[in-house]
Amino acid sequence: MAAVKKMTTIVFLGSVRENRMGLRVAKFMVKQLQEANQNVELFDPLEMPAGLLTKPLHHYQDRSTAPQWLVEADKKLRAADAIVVVSAEYNHAIPPALSNLMDHFPCSSFAYKPSAIVCYSMGPFGGMRAAMSLRCFLGELGCLSVSNIFGIPTVQNAFDADGKPLNDRMISGAKMLITQLDWHAHAMANHRNAVGIPS
Amino acid sequence: MAAVKKMTTIVFLGSVRENRMGLRVAKFMVKQLQEANQNVELFDPLEMPAGLLTKPLHHYQDRSTAPQWLVEADKKLRAADAIVVVSAEYNHAIPPALSNLMDHFPCSSFAYKPSAIVCYSMGPFGGMRAAMSLRCFLGELGCLSVSNIFGIPTVQNAFDADGKPLNDRMISGAKMLITQLDWHAHAMANHRNAVGIPS
Amino acid sequence: MAAVKKMTTIVFLGSVRENRMGLRVAKFMVKQLQEANQNVELFDPLEMPAGLLTKPLHHYQDRSTAPQWLVEADKKLRAADAIVVVSAEYNHAIPPALSNLMDHFPCSSFAYKPSAIVCYSMGPFGGMRAAMSLRCFLGELGCLSVSNIFGIPTVQNAFDADGKPLNDRMISGAKMLITQLDWHAHAMANHRNAVGIPS
Amino acid sequence: MAAVKKMTTIVFLGSVRENRMGLRVAKFMVKQLQEANQNVELFDPLEMPAGLLTKPLHHYQDRSTAPQWLVEADKKLRAADAIVVVSAEYNHAIPPALSNLMDHFPCSSFAYKPSAIVCYSMGPFGGMRAAMSLRCFLGELGCLSVSNIFGIPTVQNAFDADGKPLNDRMISGAKMLITQLDWHAHAMANHRNAVGIPS
Repeated sequence: MAAVKKMTTIVFLGSVRENRMGLRVAKFMVKQLQEANQNVELFDPLEMPAGLLTKPLHHYQDRSTAPQWLVEADKKLRAADAIVVVSAEYNHAIPPALSNLMDHFPCSSFAYKPSAIVCYSMGPFGGMRAAMSLRCFLGELGCLSVSNIFGIPTVQNAFDADGKPLNDRMISGAKMLITQLDWHAHAMANHRNAVGIPS
Repeated sequence: MAAVKKMTTIVFLGSVRENRMGLRVAKFMVKQLQEANQNVELFDPLEMPAGLLTKPLHHYQDRSTAPQWLVEADKKLRAADAIVVVSAEYNHAIPPALSNLMDHFPCSSFAYKPSAIVCYSMGPFGGMRAAMSLRCFLGELGCLSVSNIFGIPTVQNAFDADGKPLNDRMISGAKMLITQLDWHAHAMANHRNAVGIPS
Repeated sequence: MAAVKKMTTIVFLGSVRENRMGLRVAKFMVKQLQEANQNVELFDPLEMPAGLLTKPLHHYQDRSTAPQWLVEADKKLRAADAIVVVSAEYNHAIPPALSNLMDHFPCSSFAYKPSAIVCYSMGPFGGMRAAMSLRCFLGELGCLSVSNIFGIPTVQNAFDADGKPLNDRMISGAKMLITQLDWHAHAMANHRNAVGIPS
Repeated sequence: MAAVKKMTTIVFLGSVRENRMGLRVAKFMVKQLQEANQNVELFDPLEMPAGLLTKPLHHYQDRSTAPQWLVEADKKLRAADAIVVVSAEYNHAIPPALSNLMDHFPCSSFAYKPSAIVCYSMGPFGGMRAAMSLRCFLGELGCLSVSNIFGIPTVQNAFDADGKPLNDRMISGAKMLITQLDWHAHAMANHRNAVGIPS
């Protein structure tokens, strides 16, 4: 049996809007992942100077000429074992701030790793419409989204400003998702270590 | 029978990438719409100073404090009869530059009008995966996408840099789409004029 | 101004499962449409002897050799002005009983008419995941789904066995949907009468 | 390192239509999987007496009262390591014959295994629109679809009636898909053997 290694997860926060709720959800998920014994790093589009995508990293022939923040973020992404997206829903679609940031990186930085979808909305349906597009998007990036989707309706009532959960469903929901993510992260990390990845 | 009026269509171009192919497709569609006797205006995210969405127009309590370009573009959009989106496909999803620009406007500026999807890719599948998300996105915005989808595979071989088509399928494809769009634009414009729109 | 005609709507019920909840929803929608002054006909897959699709109507070279029920149902569909689908959600997808029945008819029987999505589930998300696939499916059939989607969470608590609503949201939800459907049905019927449909 | 075991894959064929092309594709895929050293079993809805779903296996309180074919097929599915779906595209949606058959089984029979999407159409877009819904469907069933999607345009020209490929792209396309499927199948089978699956 393969050795147990501490997993590292990148959490992509998917909103830069004024008064965004996503930061609450992201803070909560970071904490839950840490309590599940993971290393976690938050990629926040407000703190990464990515404008609307004009040139993804893999289109630079000489990657040393790419923006420094992008090269460094990519290094972290490559080293990670799993991805979590914290996604709002804008007009039943993926928030542009989320896809825009993720589009900056090559598929190879995501591939052969699992991902998990956390989606939320101010209304009753918890962002589940955006989640349907996210399954396709994450699949194409190469990081297969685990079966469970953690949907959070009326997010404004679910967390305080620091990401502290205000109802019981939040912790049990996160646990179920993280359990599936962690299982797949170990399965894939062990297999990457054992045989590498297909060329 | 209602009077025939010249339709006005807004074409949203969905890419700001270096060497974007979308400008070729947009130029072609603008010309085809004009030849079908429409007024056309191109909304190009490279020429509209929208960064990643922090505040859509309808979130300004006093809209006179919103950016001038946004107020003016919204006025044009409200006055239009139909919408065309010219969409690339990034990782099987809607290009962020497209959804980001459209998210700036309230649904009421799109509602009770038809829309048409033109999608393209450098590969064989013509952007049809992004089109599936676009149907949902445009539906939620209120501008129902007509049945036909004009998908353009290997777009780099389909137009020259000025948008001149290099194969016969382009003109027949555009015609089929515009015929459906124009039919619905007249149906809806006539009915808006006759009875207004639901409150 | 075009004359006001009484609209005719076909309601497709999308389940044949034991103890299906869809019949409650369909009964409710039929009643709401009638109260909104529409002629309504219910297409129930339990009452139409369609097995798994082996041959759609438009694949019969001589349509008089097609099953009688199919020919008659198609006649009603062609004469209708609008479509409503009452859809469960099975594994985040369209219930096969719904798509299977609708696939029996040619697109031309649906085209240039509006449609409305009513979706439900026993859980919190009201069938909204299936609705995303339904938008694409209905768009391809030619009957554009109106912007509003009427999603019904915990359907088992929302209606009694006769389709009588058990909470206030049901009637207001149905009204909003029917208002949009009716607007588009009149717009398109008037335009079909005025200019026909594109060949 | 975990021992290498021969993987077993279930291929779901997704059509019962007259003159279905799917059988050609399924025969081809079965052969390709066998050549890649897999055990393969074909689940063909024409040979399994599943009508439109009235009661899935997991709704029988006493499973010994369920249809024998269903109990036996479920046993094979549970024992399998991977899933392949061979899917047509009907009106931009999943063919009902495919979802209908798969809906008969509980998610637990699919879970913690990878799946692969093979889609085809008679037209240029290779069934890619149905593939977008399939990603969501397979994700909910618990068998995560690998990143690559093998799309087959103009399928009528791609295989003869015995499933012999008529162009070079078929074998290279299948190989790429099977390589990804096999990698994930081993990763997950090893991890199931090592730690079981989450309860």
